[in-house]
Amino acid sequence: MSGFPEWLPEERLVELHFLDRIRSIAELHGFASLATRAVEPLTWLVRGGDTDKELYAVSRLQDQQRAPELGLHFDLTVPLARYVAERRGHLVFPFKRYQVQPVWRGERPQEGRYREFVQADFDVVGDGSLPLQADADMVLLTFEVMNALPLPATRVLVSNRKVHLGFARALGLQDAGAVVRLLDKLDKIGADAVREGLVGGLGLPADDADLWLRLAAIRRGDLSFVDEVRALGVKDELLDEGLDELSFVLDATRHLPAGAVLADLHIARGLDYYTGTVYETALEGNEDLGSPCSGGRYDNLAADIGGAPLPGVGVSIGVTRMLGRFLSSKQLTASRKTPTCVLVALPSDEQRAECVGVAQALRARGVPAEVFPEPVPFGRQIRSADRRGIPYVWFPSPAGHSVRDIRSGSQVPVSVADWMPDPADLAPSVKYRPLDQVPAWQEG
Amino acid sequence: MSGFPEWLPEERLVELHFLDRIRSIAELHGFASLATRAVEPLTWLVRGGDTDKELYAVSRLQDQQRAPELGLHFDLTVPLARYVAERRGHLVFPFKRYQVQPVWRGERPQEGRYREFVQADFDVVGDGSLPLQADADMVLLTFEVMNALPLPATRVLVSNRKVHLGFARALGLQDAGAVVRLLDKLDKIGADAVREGLVGGLGLPADDADLWLRLAAIRRGDLSFVDEVRALGVKDELLDEGLDELSFVLDATRHLPAGAVLADLHIARGLDYYTGTVYETALEGNEDLGSPCSGGRYDNLAADIGGAPLPGVGVSIGVTRMLGRFLSSKQLTASRKTPTCVLVALPSDEQRAECVGVAQALRARGVPAEVFPEPVPFGRQIRSADRRGIPYVWFPSPAGHSVRDIRSGSQVPVSVADWMPDPADLAPSVKYRPLDQVPAWQEG
Repeated sequence: MSGFPEWLPEERLVELHFLDRIRSIAELHGFASLATRAVEPLTWLVRGGDTDKELYAVSRLQDQQRAPELGLHFDLTVPLARYVAERRGHLVFPFKRYQVQPVWRGERPQEGRYREFVQADFDVVGDGSLPLQADADMVLLTFEVMNALPLPATRVLVSNRKVHLGFARALGLQDAGAVVRLLDKLDKIGADAVREGLVGGLGLPADDADLWLRLAAIRRGDLSFVDEVRALGVKDELLDEGLDELSFVLDATRHLPAGAVLADLHIARGLDYYTGTVYETALEGNEDLGSPCSGGRYDNLAADIGGAPLPGVGVSIGVTRMLGRFLSSKQLTASRKTPTCVLVALPSDEQRAECVGVAQALRARGVPAEVFPEPVPFGRQIRSADRRGIPYVWFPSPAGHSVRDIRSGSQVPVSVADWMPDPADLAPSVKYRPLDQVPAWQEG
Repeated sequence: MSGFPEWLPEERLVELHFLDRIRSIAELHGFASLATRAVEPLTWLVRGGDTDKELYAVSRLQDQQRAPELGLHFDLTVPLARYVAERRGHLVFPFKRYQVQPVWRGERPQEGRYREFVQADFDVVGDGSLPLQADADMVLLTFEVMNALPLPATRVLVSNRKVHLGFARALGLQDAGAVVRLLDKLDKIGADAVREGLVGGLGLPADDADLWLRLAAIRRGDLSFVDEVRALGVKDELLDEGLDELSFVLDATRHLPAGAVLADLHIARGLDYYTGTVYETALEGNEDLGSPCSGGRYDNLAADIGGAPLPGVGVSIGVTRMLGRFLSSKQLTASRKTPTCVLVALPSDEQRAECVGVAQALRARGVPAEVFPEPVPFGRQIRSADRRGIPYVWFPSPAGHSVRDIRSGSQVPVSVADWMPDPADLAPSVKYRPLDQVPAWQEG
């Protein structure tokens, strides 16, 4: 079943490590966990009219003669909107939630495209209004989360759709969306193809196309981007508003390391949904992966619900997409295939109770431990530990217990009452390495 | 959408607490995490011929004219079987995995029955063979996991299907399954109804029905159950094997507290799938909830795959079912609605950067903190913290910072450099209380 990735135990440990880091940063920032049902009414899923999502319909096998009424969610924003609309009176606003769940899209599977994949979403939703500070906070969160993952340094690229919409208005363009979608492809298709699209495809004057490309080339780590935009000579109120907002966000995050955040005016996000700040991220040396974490500001989470608008700002991390890339290339690896830190060797059936007692004593101190199931020769028991990457084998003996570190082979006498492993060995660790450091025999 | 439960943020914190405890115990025992895709080929889901599972079929909305090929998994055992069969060469056996995911069943929703619900499964699967010790280890794990949850004390009830099958054979019964399924209902329908079913329904002689009821009434915390069974005067080799296995399991777990484990011969589990040890659990004072964690030993995880058999033993915790009960009765509550421990008050827009700096300093020390989004009067900011159960509000001031514990109202001067909250307040805590201690105004 292509497009439905599943990990081996050692790969799943890497995924868990990612999810733990994501959760930890989210909670430090005060985001509450949310899990919504996987299934939504189809009427709710199709309400945006976004038919290219390749929805999966769900119905009971015995009800196949009827038209399906349910579908699997294709993102975590549509369920959030429904959840917030239904429970508005029970939530405290601004409502900050993170949500880590699979989503489903019936797309043709290909490199980096899955039909079932895990996303991690963060959103802050206001009731009626939401200060611009939330847009800056989201930059900070994005930077921290992405750089807490065992990956190359990640920078956050910020832009503002009002800049593009105002620019379009000043140039007398009706369909700003078409231009924005073209600019969004700049990385993929290059400047010449975009120019051709603007002039040949959309019928823009060559000078205007040039202005767009000069706008899209602006990329600055400080407020100098404002002067660069102004130097293009295009004037519009909405454009000014966008520059002000973007300046605020950049200024409010200036305490981050130099280069952590860039105003990058080619970032526009294809979705019409976004109305202000938009975010992308770039993984150093892996820019071809695209943006592993993206998002933006929206005016109303659930426009068709009625009541005061629910403005919000959010980002989404493509967890499976990143993992798919770096697990298959063997750049991300876990130090073992199991949480077990100590394998207690079983010398004989008679010593089983004693061995179970050793494992229990270790577990009571927080050391993951298990007893080998059968009293086979020690060589086989040690090999089993080795195959799973378990660092220690414990040998119980009436003459005294001992523990072997099977990486170094050194074996020392120990006491059941107080022996502890190296703290670094308590849990599996996860390592990232550049592609050129992956041994050839391990390459995926 | 009835049958698809979703929790409020404060309820989700309780669920997370449960899942964290389950994971922690699982990993201490050396179980590796596994996540399988939600979707399986329908041919695989229906292969057991178990048509009463009320399967959900899945197909792309645009493919509705074709018969569906996929379905949502209705448990975590069928996906485990497929996963292990597919990756046999990549796994180390015995393969110990835990798996916490939603499952879907199109049943009619009712009290305690859901259409989407979370299960937590633990299985140990051997390649060719699996020692009986695994059955005892599973008792230990079940006892530890269930008693690590904020719930009343849980005991583990153990039986062995070989006892029932041998008993049936000795009495000349063809369809042991029908008797076992009746005994399984003893708690629900009572001894008289079971007797009526055995005699009137299945046509057993009254004396044999009596023997079955006397067998089912045996419930002992020590090995004396063996003599009680023998006293019934029924003799069979398989029965003896079952008694031996059950004795081994009880003996191997005798270090647990008295009453933690009972040999309970009315436990038979309805599923034909189980072939030896079977488990149920009973939550003290909540026996009407049924068994929140059940399972057993099976001969072959994937009989139709070929190769050596994959014998295993496993249990499954009905997470959503327990939560549904105790969240709606308000017996399980979280101390707050958000991970946030400290709300940094915002005196004015000018002090925003300073406030963000305070929150950053707290987060760097592992204290979840956020800044109130708008410079409204402090009373409103404090009320917002109170509504979310955030224990501390931080007041920045050029004259010196202070922190108020909003539960006690006490406010003290503090330093940004080193203040720490009471460690018990760092994360939300979860509390269980008996039904008679839930205040009437809170009852669900």
